[in-house]
Amino acid sequence: MSQKPSEHLLAALEKIVGPKGALRPGPDQAPYLKEWRDKFQGATPLILRPASTLELSEILKLTYEADVAVVPQGGNTGLVGGQIPHPGGDEILISLDRMTHIRAVDTDNNTLTVDGGVILAEVQKVATDHNRFFPLSLASEGSARIGGLLSTNAGGTNVLRYGNAREQVLGLEVVLPDGTIWEGLRGLRKDNTGYDLKDLFIGAEGTLGIITGAVLKLQARPRDHAAALVGLRSPADAIALLAQARAAFDQALTGFELMSRRGLEFVIASFDDARDPLAAPHDWYVLLELSSTDQPGTLSPRLERFLADVLQEGLIADAALAASDQQRRDFWDLRERFSEAQKPFGGSIKHDISLPASKIAEFLERANDLVAKACPGIRPVPFGHLGDGNLHYNLTQPEDMDKQAYLDQWPQISRIVHDLVSEMGGSISAEHGLGQLKRDEIKRYKSEIEMDLMRRIKQAFDPKGLMNPGKVV
Amino acid sequence: MSQKPSEHLLAALEKIVGPKGALRPGPDQAPYLKEWRDKFQGATPLILRPASTLELSEILKLTYEADVAVVPQGGNTGLVGGQIPHPGGDEILISLDRMTHIRAVDTDNNTLTVDGGVILAEVQKVATDHNRFFPLSLASEGSARIGGLLSTNAGGTNVLRYGNAREQVLGLEVVLPDGTIWEGLRGLRKDNTGYDLKDLFIGAEGTLGIITGAVLKLQARPRDHAAALVGLRSPADAIALLAQARAAFDQALTGFELMSRRGLEFVIASFDDARDPLAAPHDWYVLLELSSTDQPGTLSPRLERFLADVLQEGLIADAALAASDQQRRDFWDLRERFSEAQKPFGGSIKHDISLPASKIAEFLERANDLVAKACPGIRPVPFGHLGDGNLHYNLTQPEDMDKQAYLDQWPQISRIVHDLVSEMGGSISAEHGLGQLKRDEIKRYKSEIEMDLMRRIKQAFDPKGLMNPGKVV
Repeated sequence: MSQKPSEHLLAALEKIVGPKGALRPGPDQAPYLKEWRDKFQGATPLILRPASTLELSEILKLTYEADVAVVPQGGNTGLVGGQIPHPGGDEILISLDRMTHIRAVDTDNNTLTVDGGVILAEVQKVATDHNRFFPLSLASEGSARIGGLLSTNAGGTNVLRYGNAREQVLGLEVVLPDGTIWEGLRGLRKDNTGYDLKDLFIGAEGTLGIITGAVLKLQARPRDHAAALVGLRSPADAIALLAQARAAFDQALTGFELMSRRGLEFVIASFDDARDPLAAPHDWYVLLELSSTDQPGTLSPRLERFLADVLQEGLIADAALAASDQQRRDFWDLRERFSEAQKPFGGSIKHDISLPASKIAEFLERANDLVAKACPGIRPVPFGHLGDGNLHYNLTQPEDMDKQAYLDQWPQISRIVHDLVSEMGGSISAEHGLGQLKRDEIKRYKSEIEMDLMRRIKQAFDPKGLMNPGKVV
Repeated sequence: MSQKPSEHLLAALEKIVGPKGALRPGPDQAPYLKEWRDKFQGATPLILRPASTLELSEILKLTYEADVAVVPQGGNTGLVGGQIPHPGGDEILISLDRMTHIRAVDTDNNTLTVDGGVILAEVQKVATDHNRFFPLSLASEGSARIGGLLSTNAGGTNVLRYGNAREQVLGLEVVLPDGTIWEGLRGLRKDNTGYDLKDLFIGAEGTLGIITGAVLKLQARPRDHAAALVGLRSPADAIALLAQARAAFDQALTGFELMSRRGLEFVIASFDDARDPLAAPHDWYVLLELSSTDQPGTLSPRLERFLADVLQEGLIADAALAASDQQRRDFWDLRERFSEAQKPFGGSIKHDISLPASKIAEFLERANDLVAKACPGIRPVPFGHLGDGNLHYNLTQPEDMDKQAYLDQWPQISRIVHDLVSEMGGSISAEHGLGQLKRDEIKRYKSEIEMDLMRRIKQAFDPKGLMNPGKVV
């Protein structure tokens, strides 16, 4: 059982990091204690901002000895409250925001070694500066930090081609709950010498240790891109199109995003510069993107031929090929505005789910039916990374309903959606993790055997339960 | 502490699998008890060949209750003795060779669900039958089984483009040491709902549980290939060529194999139909292969232009482009005959190591010096998957030395090589695992912290130490 930290301990911890690295309660603490969607608000007697792995190690030696709990935090962009301490105010918050060194660039090995506090956009920039590409990319890349991104196994827009955050990592440095440092910063593509510790820390949301360093894989820099906005009749047709696009383009297929007509209409209504991309309206749209290291201009003609073929087959109803990089970005803007465009239309109940691609059409049909029965007039706005089987199944409120009355139904509606996802072999948290938000809910869907294995790992790595307690497991 | 199985237990175990599924000591046991390189010979009172996951679960419930140890085995193609019971004869051997069902093919989700005992070549065939591609490929694919391949995180010839066995898996079914079944057969590309159990079982060499089923990822089937045999001056030039080929071809680069002149001469001397591929001899060779889903005939001209450029730059000395699929296979034959071609030249001390690509040139120089000092006249024959940083650093004996006297030096020579690998941030087992062979040696190279974490996992999953004891950790 963790203890309330004594004033003596707090003073000793402050001494480790110096005055720049410690924040007592007050306005300076505010940005660290609130999650940006406003779902979680925490409290802490002390925020520590160590400048090095060694400082962090010293911190955890003391907290471990004193049985005091800690909460690690990267860029505070998580969506499930994993990075926010509990309101009780007994947990020390440890921010990585001063551990921002690029430790090494190895272009022959295509690796980059960084501190856990480096911001994702900075990693992308360093890769580009060395004529390489770091593919992890998501909306919060300007503030999300590598340690947090790995601890949550972040997804984003490039998963189809490059995989999740997990796939971008060759090695890790982790400070364990008792302050010992696991030095696993290997730059190896093959290493079969025992259990895969790295992948255990990745996605553990800081409950097994704190990721302070990582060896990241760099990729060849794409030189050519092509994109099209495709109109279709149904999600089933979109899945068939995905299969054909995979067979034709393989790893050059870097984006395959599904959008519903209603969502597109919300975007067009919400943004002055948004235009209907095709002459006639269609029930469904796919944004299809190709990228490769080929000569610029190689992919667009290939995509054009492909689209002509599937149009002739009747698999798609219409398509617009991006004629320029600007038009390609415009297509992405449509897609990226989907979340924000829902705001003017009232409350939105959101789900971050995944399914086998083969189940998505059936899921959408059944889910739309079920939620309409539970809340007549509800407006589903599904969209997402269809190529990864990942849907943001967002549900906008009925037109004439009170927003709060609608949002009050979140638990019941989510229960319906998650039960169906689980029945169909899907996941109730595709990208965002469990954190505080889904920690209890997951028990409904995971077998007792799996929960037990997870608890055994937690017990093995953090026997005192001091590392981000009350999160995940 | 595990116990000797009683006759009563043996009879009960036999009853679970029926007469076809049980082998008592005798000639029928022989193929299961000997590793093919003849390094390990085991003994067991009973070999069990369950026909289903439920039978295996029943078996482990009984062995767990009786504190009896078990050794799981796939196709018995492992090279480090992980699948061979100890000679003491107290361990029950469990073979997966009757669990050979293809459970499901899902072409829309690009997945294949199989029993743990399915042979790799069969998986490849099913994929091809459905116009898909399963990329895991290695010399023993005609007998290696999926459960064993995943338990050892097998590598092979397609790692550069598709990753190790680990990367081919979306979900697992595992029978735990006490017989409970973990049903983790998910077909999801994104699922952030807790600790990554799957990757813990993959590569654990059957010490945490027995993999009885897997959801495997299928890939688009390549239609176009191109290959070249390139002559170069040095491994450093080969690394520079690798960087340029990556930038030019990205994921279309599917093979990048390094070969030394001496090895090539061994092949030419050992095989009647092997020819020197280039007009003049070169100190080093690279076999470079491209594959893609493009129209057949697209890649060869691209490769030709690339080679012309690097020839003009002076980075390579000569190159032969494969003019046909037959010639491409001939190039691969040269490479694949490297191991066998060493036999007529006497004893060979072998290493399966990996390093960051950026360190390989330096490693070869230093290692060759060190082993020549330890054993004058020793003949290094390094070759391997340079694109993965994986070298088979094989050392043929001096010309005029007694074979056994040379092989007796294996421990000293390997110590020199592995110490250098470790110093340079490499791995002493890139592909093959630890098993019995390297279980003690790894303690010299892994930190006590890492060994401790591995032991904690073993303790958490297999508290009685009954699951493949004396392997890995």
